[in-house]
Amino acid sequence: MKLFDLAGAESARRFSPYCWRIKLALAHKGLTAETIPWRFTDKDALAMSGQGRVPVLLDGDKVVSDSWAIANYLEDSYQDRPSLFGGAEARRVTRFINSWADTVLNAALVRLLLTDIYAHLHEHDRRYFRESREKRFGMPLEQVSADRDTKIIEFRQSLEPARIILTAQSYIAGDSPLYADYIVFGCFMWPRSISSIRLLASDDPIFSWRERMLDAFGGLARKAPGYAE
Amino acid sequence: MKLFDLAGAESARRFSPYCWRIKLALAHKGLTAETIPWRFTDKDALAMSGQGRVPVLLDGDKVVSDSWAIANYLEDSYQDRPSLFGGAEARRVTRFINSWADTVLNAALVRLLLTDIYAHLHEHDRRYFRESREKRFGMPLEQVSADRDTKIIEFRQSLEPARIILTAQSYIAGDSPLYADYIVFGCFMWPRSISSIRLLASDDPIFSWRERMLDAFGGLARKAPGYAE
Repeated sequence: MKLFDLAGAESARRFSPYCWRIKLALAHKGLTAETIPWRFTDKDALAMSGQGRVPVLLDGDKVVSDSWAIANYLEDSYQDRPSLFGGAEARRVTRFINSWADTVLNAALVRLLLTDIYAHLHEHDRRYFRESREKRFGMPLEQVSADRDTKIIEFRQSLEPARIILTAQSYIAGDSPLYADYIVFGCFMWPRSISSIRLLASDDPIFSWRERMLDAFGGLARKAPGYAE
Repeated sequence: MKLFDLAGAESARRFSPYCWRIKLALAHKGLTAETIPWRFTDKDALAMSGQGRVPVLLDGDKVVSDSWAIANYLEDSYQDRPSLFGGAEARRVTRFINSWADTVLNAALVRLLLTDIYAHLHEHDRRYFRESREKRFGMPLEQVSADRDTKIIEFRQSLEPARIILTAQSYIAGDSPLYADYIVFGCFMWPRSISSIRLLASDDPIFSWRERMLDAFGGLARKAPGYAE
């Protein structure tokens, strides 16, 4: 298997939250994929997927894009491996967490991280990134990422549903992690990869959970190039 | 079984989102409970539960309070009936939706509804409600519930994770409703019971889902005293 994985100037710096979901899902299934560093402007490399964003998974002659679709593909194609969801109903409810992470967590994080992302991009990506993001947000990157202190407080508040769960149990999915955990943890690998920002208080139950997730699968995520909080 | 259920001046007007979760969970399990109208100041009536809030379920000599605990009690005690969650993993992930509904949806709704709740309260409850809520919010009820138009827009935005799911499938839990649906739907029965506020645009996928939920179990929720949007 091959996984196209968003990279910065340094090809080992992999900062996509969506790609991290899949790298952990692959580890959960005991599957290995060669990760191929990919930059925003390498649109041609993804032509076979019919779209222009990562993650894209190649499994033999099968091409799957979009992290949720890839997780479902892995679950359905490798049923003899440990389940990512824990059943059909759990899969559907996990999709809610996927939507929440995308629309709440990642939507808040991008505003905190734009300038840090920019600083770590390959030079080929910088102009594209600045132009596309400034068009999307209607202002300079530096202005979107201003007022970080307020944004961090709001981000912490938005984590309350996860905090309640993680006060009562070790992982979002219970005693051990499932894809629900990889979804939310992927969000945290994004800042960790490219920013020294301190998002969580050290006495936050989410902080302890993140430590456990960093250690999962032999420290797969902890070993990746990034900034320790 | 008996269920203590929050009521307004009119004893048939039942407006607690947490009690609605349980009434739908009971219907899902094919169980019936006599609902006992309860007001905020009837603290003595709940003494056997060791706390002062509803829902409280009496099942023989068993007393259970807190909607999440009651849902778990029903699931574990009536395993031969249709499952509320669809398995252990799904139950844990559903707890996330429970926390999200409490901390995001209900936290937003209470600010929209305080004056409408007050207008529907039994006269014995009014002073207690005004004093306790004005203390909690640090301002008069009327001031908390001001600027509704902005608050409605923010509430609609906060529903985005549910909207994404309900664009792709009929219920949050898939092809048919489970407790994940009853959690979120309970939030909507709160405004419906006591307010003429229009929370959703009619072309919102959540609007159609809410219609299906109102019709579930022979129109259990639709028949309850309230305001149609």
